[in-house]
Amino acid sequence: MPVQKFAVADANFERLERQEPAIDTANLVDQRHGGPVTIGYGRYGPGAVLEEAIAVHDTMIVLEGEVSVTSDTGTVAAGPGDIVYMPEGERVTIRAAEAGALTAYVTYPHWQEARL
Amino acid sequence: MPVQKFAVADANFERLERQEPAIDTANLVDQRHGGPVTIGYGRYGPGAVLEEAIAVHDTMIVLEGEVSVTSDTGTVAAGPGDIVYMPEGERVTIRAAEAGALTAYVTYPHWQEARL
Repeated sequence: MPVQKFAVADANFERLERQEPAIDTANLVDQRHGGPVTIGYGRYGPGAVLEEAIAVHDTMIVLEGEVSVTSDTGTVAAGPGDIVYMPEGERVTIRAAEAGALTAYVTYPHWQEARL
Repeated sequence: MPVQKFAVADANFERLERQEPAIDTANLVDQRHGGPVTIGYGRYGPGAVLEEAIAVHDTMIVLEGEVSVTSDTGTVAAGPGDIVYMPEGERVTIRAAEAGALTAYVTYPHWQEARL
């Protein structure tokens, strides 16, 4: 795979789970491309909540809106430009603020393979 | 390492190389923390240029400003919210626009260990 640039406008979002408010993800690079990391965008509807046992090392960069992430050690709030690192094995609850949120993520290894 | 949130205001930037315009990097998570990825912020002065043989899988998310990345396959321009994926083994030239740029990066494995 060569050097590639991705923009939100190019992303194909898919519903993560059957839930409302919706959470959509759009993998840009993943297991299909032969590399070690998955890269993508996440889109959270207003107030959307995701409870997840993190099965990979997950780095989330907030691009728009705001999210809070609750884990054993407490709750952190993150807005545009902030980064939340969720190491493998942590149990987290991600909550989008009322305006929703747009994030970028990089996981090692591939989250879809670890989650299914 | 627990779940952690980082903001640009918390970052300790260090000069990448003795060059002007300057490029500064601030690792937030790296080989010191025992995980597989390095996470950090990059700050490019106006018109700063970085030529690099990419020794790790490097994902760059543009937070402010604009950069162009030139590789064998051409040049891509990236602004806020855009992602540039630079796989291991690529030779790239990263150029910041006149306003400079702020980026977030995630590398696998650790770029400082691969570069030194």
